[in-house]
Amino acid sequence: MFLSLFVALKSKATKFFKRAWKTGMDEPKKFIHCLKVGMCLSIVSLFYYTRPLYDGVGGNAMWAVMTVVVVLEYTVGGTLYKGFNRATATLLAGSLGVGIHLLASKSGDRGEPIIRGASVFLIASAATFSRFIPEVKSRFDYGVLIFILTFSLVSVSGYRVDKLFDLAQQRLSTIAIGTSMCIFISILVFPVWAGTDLHRLVIRNMDKLAESLDGCVSTYFDGGIRKSEEEPGKKAQGYKCVLNSKASEESLANLARWEPGHGCFGFSYPWGQYLKIGTAMRHCACCLEALNGCINSDIQAPEFIKKHLSDGCMKLSSHSTDVLKELSNIIKSMEKSSNIDTLLGDMKNQGKPDAAMTNVPLMDILPVVTMASLLIEIAARIENITDT
Amino acid sequence: MFLSLFVALKSKATKFFKRAWKTGMDEPKKFIHCLKVGMCLSIVSLFYYTRPLYDGVGGNAMWAVMTVVVVLEYTVGGTLYKGFNRATATLLAGSLGVGIHLLASKSGDRGEPIIRGASVFLIASAATFSRFIPEVKSRFDYGVLIFILTFSLVSVSGYRVDKLFDLAQQRLSTIAIGTSMCIFISILVFPVWAGTDLHRLVIRNMDKLAESLDGCVSTYFDGGIRKSEEEPGKKAQGYKCVLNSKASEESLANLARWEPGHGCFGFSYPWGQYLKIGTAMRHCACCLEALNGCINSDIQAPEFIKKHLSDGCMKLSSHSTDVLKELSNIIKSMEKSSNIDTLLGDMKNQGKPDAAMTNVPLMDILPVVTMASLLIEIAARIENITDT
Repeated sequence: MFLSLFVALKSKATKFFKRAWKTGMDEPKKFIHCLKVGMCLSIVSLFYYTRPLYDGVGGNAMWAVMTVVVVLEYTVGGTLYKGFNRATATLLAGSLGVGIHLLASKSGDRGEPIIRGASVFLIASAATFSRFIPEVKSRFDYGVLIFILTFSLVSVSGYRVDKLFDLAQQRLSTIAIGTSMCIFISILVFPVWAGTDLHRLVIRNMDKLAESLDGCVSTYFDGGIRKSEEEPGKKAQGYKCVLNSKASEESLANLARWEPGHGCFGFSYPWGQYLKIGTAMRHCACCLEALNGCINSDIQAPEFIKKHLSDGCMKLSSHSTDVLKELSNIIKSMEKSSNIDTLLGDMKNQGKPDAAMTNVPLMDILPVVTMASLLIEIAARIENITDT
Repeated sequence: MFLSLFVALKSKATKFFKRAWKTGMDEPKKFIHCLKVGMCLSIVSLFYYTRPLYDGVGGNAMWAVMTVVVVLEYTVGGTLYKGFNRATATLLAGSLGVGIHLLASKSGDRGEPIIRGASVFLIASAATFSRFIPEVKSRFDYGVLIFILTFSLVSVSGYRVDKLFDLAQQRLSTIAIGTSMCIFISILVFPVWAGTDLHRLVIRNMDKLAESLDGCVSTYFDGGIRKSEEEPGKKAQGYKCVLNSKASEESLANLARWEPGHGCFGFSYPWGQYLKIGTAMRHCACCLEALNGCINSDIQAPEFIKKHLSDGCMKLSSHSTDVLKELSNIIKSMEKSSNIDTLLGDMKNQGKPDAAMTNVPLMDILPVVTMASLLIEIAARIENITDT
């Protein structure tokens, strides 16, 4: 029994490590990030190991270690966001705390704990409340947390510690050391820019959208009906990634705002545009999802109607795919292309897949007609993507 | 000029406070949470103000304050998640750190810094890597962070601090005090359960889906075409909330797993089911989004065809809405309902809106037909929701 338990555990562990290894191999940048964290921590430990540095910060080197662990994030934007928030919040809360300390220490033995207690209660409650406001949450959530933390610490420590100024100043300087080291290392050693990641994500999604539009339509008309159920991993399913990437787009755009200009992105690059493109793409992917439903529908149109419509639909879809691919190229090269107008014109002039219907029961042609209609809708939505 | 700046600032500040006030009024639970944080911090400050308590934890009361600020989250699940992670990670990392300290202190003056440095580098890198693995990230992200933090602190402090055991033990006990206080307060004083929130969110989304299906179809056939553009805030747009609630559903379900049984939810309640229902609803909302596109399409079918189809479509949509509403009731009361089978049967037997088409150009009827087809698809997807 113990043996079987051991074997089960072993196979689970092997599976886990294999997955972990795959994660690392897929994105070597993640491996490098781990080494960066290790390196940064080792450097900051030097403050403990070398006498002069240790004396300089008076045993408060602990805060530098904490800062490195907490601030060094995977992307440059994340590190800057946390570093800036941590430094500013510590400075603000420290000054406020020292101010209230001075006030409290002058108000006698009875007033002192009351002033301290009340100020902690009020300021902590108000700051916690501000974390619920969306604008504060998206940009300064971490800062507010550190503000509450530092303020409470300074305020209550003041009751026992005599040299509060020294404490505050040492804490601030060690945090400054930790933060600046994190920022240097994250920018200089194999930087991972949130902005570049966002840029690539949007391009990849645009390509996936084009591929799955192409895949869906050609599977349907080339007779490969219901193939998509058997091969769920294939290209036609790419639109699902587009539907699910809202959260990662938003967090990347949030972090990208903190980054300085890099590569071909200037400072205050309009990252919000990527979010708009993302929304337009999801709009389009939604239609594709509905279209996929028609393909797998129980009702299948008779072959002759399919053939009748196939030509128009295939053309419209290939024009639409061309526009999407061109758009992805435009984003990639970040240059305007004269080509896009021609392609858009082609798509619009392609006209709608039409057919002079004779007495056919409506029920039979429903899926094909829906398909055609959705294609038209998708083409219209692609136009929207172009506009943004 | 200064005056205009002042006025602009003032109006901005007023707007900000008005929004903040609205946030609080909409959800008074948030106000209460803020007061809870303030209260908890005030109680923990007592450790500083009362001599016997202060002497008991030897000036390390700081860690209790930090723990309260960091661990006390809005939901009970969040607090339990952070508290459990923080306590376990501190214990594990503390023991490992002390173990390596003993090893290092026995290996001579030259070996000591090398062993310490190497262990920090290796363990921090490995732990950072584990944060990229999805399973670890969703459940133990915070724990791994605290593990790295504690291990580095213990490991480097060992070089200077003589009484490392005392330090480790005090840190552990203060964190235990802080954590248990947070857990008590979050469970006993006006608890906010992530599970209940998830439950309500799913019910609300189900209702919204029913309303917007109803709204869309009746606007189209009752002649109120294009109204939806003029009143974007109206009920028919409710499906957009459903499309956007993926992230919040997932985070709530993640936190709900940490919660003990409460109300009508037992321990190890299958929260994953809510995620499945959510996915099925988004599937359905996607179709509704495509349907909305048809309603606002440039091509409008001639009135007589619309009339022809209107009856069947309206009936199908009202049956579908009934099923959705019944489902939402079932989730609300958590009881099986015999009604649902009848309603489902009605929906299926309703048959598809059919029409014997005479020579009408396909182009003209496209949107109506698409609409009908999408309705059928939506009905099928509602069946899927029922199955999950």
